[in-house]
Amino acid sequence: MSATSSHTGTNWGRFGADDERGMLNLLTPEVVLQATRVPKTGKVYSLALPIQRAGVPYFDYRGAPTRLPLAHQSDPGQFVAYGAPEHVGANEDVLIMASHNETHMDALSHVFSERTMYNGVPAETVSAQAGATKLGIEKVGWIVGRAVLLDMVRFYGADQRLEGAAAIGSDDLEACARLQGVEVRDRDILLVRTGWIDCFLAQDVHGPADFAMADYAQPGLSTDAARFMDDHDITAIGADNSAVEVLGRPEDVFLGGHVELLVKRGIHLVEHLMLKEMADDECYECLFVVAPLPVVGAAGSPVNPIAIG
Amino acid sequence: MSATSSHTGTNWGRFGADDERGMLNLLTPEVVLQATRVPKTGKVYSLALPIQRAGVPYFDYRGAPTRLPLAHQSDPGQFVAYGAPEHVGANEDVLIMASHNETHMDALSHVFSERTMYNGVPAETVSAQAGATKLGIEKVGWIVGRAVLLDMVRFYGADQRLEGAAAIGSDDLEACARLQGVEVRDRDILLVRTGWIDCFLAQDVHGPADFAMADYAQPGLSTDAARFMDDHDITAIGADNSAVEVLGRPEDVFLGGHVELLVKRGIHLVEHLMLKEMADDECYECLFVVAPLPVVGAAGSPVNPIAIG
Amino acid sequence: MSATSSHTGTNWGRFGADDERGMLNLLTPEVVLQATRVPKTGKVYSLALPIQRAGVPYFDYRGAPTRLPLAHQSDPGQFVAYGAPEHVGANEDVLIMASHNETHMDALSHVFSERTMYNGVPAETVSAQAGATKLGIEKVGWIVGRAVLLDMVRFYGADQRLEGAAAIGSDDLEACARLQGVEVRDRDILLVRTGWIDCFLAQDVHGPADFAMADYAQPGLSTDAARFMDDHDITAIGADNSAVEVLGRPEDVFLGGHVELLVKRGIHLVEHLMLKEMADDECYECLFVVAPLPVVGAAGSPVNPIAIG
Amino acid sequence: MSATSSHTGTNWGRFGADDERGMLNLLTPEVVLQATRVPKTGKVYSLALPIQRAGVPYFDYRGAPTRLPLAHQSDPGQFVAYGAPEHVGANEDVLIMASHNETHMDALSHVFSERTMYNGVPAETVSAQAGATKLGIEKVGWIVGRAVLLDMVRFYGADQRLEGAAAIGSDDLEACARLQGVEVRDRDILLVRTGWIDCFLAQDVHGPADFAMADYAQPGLSTDAARFMDDHDITAIGADNSAVEVLGRPEDVFLGGHVELLVKRGIHLVEHLMLKEMADDECYECLFVVAPLPVVGAAGSPVNPIAIG
Repeated sequence: MSATSSHTGTNWGRFGADDERGMLNLLTPEVVLQATRVPKTGKVYSLALPIQRAGVPYFDYRGAPTRLPLAHQSDPGQFVAYGAPEHVGANEDVLIMASHNETHMDALSHVFSERTMYNGVPAETVSAQAGATKLGIEKVGWIVGRAVLLDMVRFYGADQRLEGAAAIGSDDLEACARLQGVEVRDRDILLVRTGWIDCFLAQDVHGPADFAMADYAQPGLSTDAARFMDDHDITAIGADNSAVEVLGRPEDVFLGGHVELLVKRGIHLVEHLMLKEMADDECYECLFVVAPLPVVGAAGSPVNPIAIG
Repeated sequence: MSATSSHTGTNWGRFGADDERGMLNLLTPEVVLQATRVPKTGKVYSLALPIQRAGVPYFDYRGAPTRLPLAHQSDPGQFVAYGAPEHVGANEDVLIMASHNETHMDALSHVFSERTMYNGVPAETVSAQAGATKLGIEKVGWIVGRAVLLDMVRFYGADQRLEGAAAIGSDDLEACARLQGVEVRDRDILLVRTGWIDCFLAQDVHGPADFAMADYAQPGLSTDAARFMDDHDITAIGADNSAVEVLGRPEDVFLGGHVELLVKRGIHLVEHLMLKEMADDECYECLFVVAPLPVVGAAGSPVNPIAIG
Repeated sequence: MSATSSHTGTNWGRFGADDERGMLNLLTPEVVLQATRVPKTGKVYSLALPIQRAGVPYFDYRGAPTRLPLAHQSDPGQFVAYGAPEHVGANEDVLIMASHNETHMDALSHVFSERTMYNGVPAETVSAQAGATKLGIEKVGWIVGRAVLLDMVRFYGADQRLEGAAAIGSDDLEACARLQGVEVRDRDILLVRTGWIDCFLAQDVHGPADFAMADYAQPGLSTDAARFMDDHDITAIGADNSAVEVLGRPEDVFLGGHVELLVKRGIHLVEHLMLKEMADDECYECLFVVAPLPVVGAAGSPVNPIAIG
Repeated sequence: MSATSSHTGTNWGRFGADDERGMLNLLTPEVVLQATRVPKTGKVYSLALPIQRAGVPYFDYRGAPTRLPLAHQSDPGQFVAYGAPEHVGANEDVLIMASHNETHMDALSHVFSERTMYNGVPAETVSAQAGATKLGIEKVGWIVGRAVLLDMVRFYGADQRLEGAAAIGSDDLEACARLQGVEVRDRDILLVRTGWIDCFLAQDVHGPADFAMADYAQPGLSTDAARFMDDHDITAIGADNSAVEVLGRPEDVFLGGHVELLVKRGIHLVEHLMLKEMADDECYECLFVVAPLPVVGAAGSPVNPIAIG
């Protein structure tokens, strides 16, 4: 239990009336320095999905990520005008990507409730033309800290992944940590493995065609899991599903988990992580680094999160 | 001097005939683990430029980076169909970005000479539709290691930045390291500060209007600096200018530095870094993390490099 | 004077409470059929600017139009999987364009005043995600009618173009028609030539670098010109400047011309037309065809207007 | 039969060694002028599909067309800096579209055979960066002429559409024209209705999910239909399917119809036309106008073809 968690379930005002970074404020130099001492093997995990048109999860309205050539090796004499010989040239691309497909990070401007975002910032501060004038992804800068991986697939003894709309609560998280023998410390980053993305990639559960909002279901955190975050002052959460929270349960309010975590608590979320290799290695604690692109005003960013075991 | 640098100036074949990662192969778990022990203060530096239309350097043919709203707080009843109340909603964006504007990383497929890329891979393996079938940015995964910052602005006693086409050679780099009292170790990552980007941002040297290929000049590494890389088995290079190498000297072959470093040696390059704060802090060694977006087939990626001092 | 212009300066309600096409309603089959008999020479004019990055006018915040290859002749064996021989292939592109750069047409959803668009439609009916749910460009379908070209450059005896912020009123338009000996008929389309774009393209007045909102000035229609539209039931207006209306006069309300024409009268506007060749030919009446792309919800579309002399 | 068709099945050289417009050269002012006298009712048909993400045909690798807001009514005080009141504002968009989805027109640079395009232009003249340096869509300018609609659905007595891979040859076209009582004249534009797109839109045959290259089949012209084009000097062809030519017959060479028509004959193709309303009206001849966007170097353009009956 965090010594500082006297707040009543939200962190609005906790870091000042003008704060735009939420729980990331707790990743102080001391906390970061301690986290750099966590690695034991030096093995590095890149937790991002490949970014390509096919074979990866995306919601249709966001469009598939697109790479198009801007400069290409077949272009004749690219740099002859600059004195370079004909046989020297370059390739470059243009990338078109939704901010919330693929492996990505939500800015605190991503979701609002009662038309209010984290720390009481009105939804209206996000304009279409300028984007988020507060709480944009460029306010993050970085996430660096100790992360704990809780492999709920192994915990439940599931075959590959949790069932469609399986909900993970605080007690499950605590029990999983105990089973794994990993201590959850104040200001840790939490990584939750449900197996969902591994099954997506293996195509035995979902294909792109049925990845529709209407009938999808994904395992994930219940709103009860917010208690776990409060007890440990969790600074950020990553998961291998589309929304961190469980999706598709009739009893849930849509986006309820985002409201509890992102809006009320200022906890940044990282989604569509690939956690299988870490889980296979039983690498349950790591130095974790997420570096979102500082797109001014954006509500999120594709990221390539790095874990060092 | 590296005990393993018996090669004759290139690293083709050094890591196997099929290698696509070049000098990054030397960032073994042992090297990474040692690098995690480098931080002394825990202060984290995000070295990326803000990504926005105005006030940042970009070549006109690449276009300015663009953020456009995909879902917006003003959209009425976004999730009412899913049972959410009207007052709950989300913001999302679409990002359109060149791979080599802003702070970015070159893939080994970025440049070729004699129509050949690193490790003898033919330029023709990069197709327009599929992109780089070899040496694409998705082969990188990550850069994690100890980085040394050489602040050439301070070394030369320059006011803010080096002159237009000032060239930095191996002896300069060695002397700067000595002056700073920082040891350059085998397999280090090299960060070079020329002051160029700070002056760009302050608008006292270049404005977007005159950032044209025809008459631009930037300080940077001369091809002689490749000797420094060989002597220390430098695994990657970052700089605060547009091309790591010096630009605009009549005696240079255009892209000659890329050919020496990227093509011959398989050394990845990271450009448009913001290094002023590290330099001001005299933070000359750090744990350095770069996590390019794994865009399949891309010749580069925007990145947000992280240094932990 | 139009026999039907008993309205008091606006056309709201004139075509029904639910109308979304404004004055285009007057282009009935009879009017169209008469217009098809206008051509005398059969010479066809394409009035669109080339769409390319350089040398064309665009506002910086809209970005330059971009063409990127999607399929390219250098791609190896493009259709071998479909049984085609290796030597057969295709080129295709992706186009990224602002709706209001280049030669384009404004939808009635483009501008609002008192937060209301044409026919009393509230501005709020345009959502970010769905676009214009009313008055979108897809409601246009087509403009086909008789157009009259008024060459104000010749009328004023100007050398190439009218001065910076020269304002054209109703009397000027009437006088110019008389001078040209061309009759303006009810339900005509009006084309106005100021010479602005010709000078832009010749770079002797504006270059892209100074095409900034702060200090620009363009010749065009004054709000007084609306009287001319009422008197003749003008169904659409095209001009060779950026906004049809005069820009840069201190005494004008910004977008005042759009409010008079587009918002109050439901007159569609076509901008950045190239009218010099028609003017040189003294082709003052034509069959005029504009076919905007029916992008659902868009506030405008790039177009290639066609005049048949 | 055309008096001028002494050529041997191709039109290379027919309009000069440097020609880039192919059969459109035959649309002389005289031909255009005659075509303007064709309309009998003045009814105007917009033949383009709506451009939107859902419910329209597109090949997945091209991505769905995308409209994103660039300026939006919810942006606060858009033009206050220019002196406009707060209640005045504008909506604008950015459009991202493949050149060959939706209703579109092929440039002569779209397809090559024996690595050669129309008029002997080498495929290599299309660079990735500059696009088509010859035969690009901007060379078209316009198509204006008399078009004849042949409704093959009615001709065959089919219910809604022709069968999957039904092939239409020259004799079928001639017989259909006779049945319809419409004369095909030299230099006409040919419009062919197969019913394919109507069935696509009605979703009773194809949905986006099964619009895959592997198993698709579409009715269309056989290569034998080229004879009809030669006999009548057909200047352009439009159809309501994806490629004008029949798709999915084992005996055909992939893109064989494009090679015969576009490459050998320089006949521009317009695809994904909506022809049902014209057919229902038995409007078998019209004044036909296609105005592609003059995107410099592009291999095609989305279009909104206009027919005036």
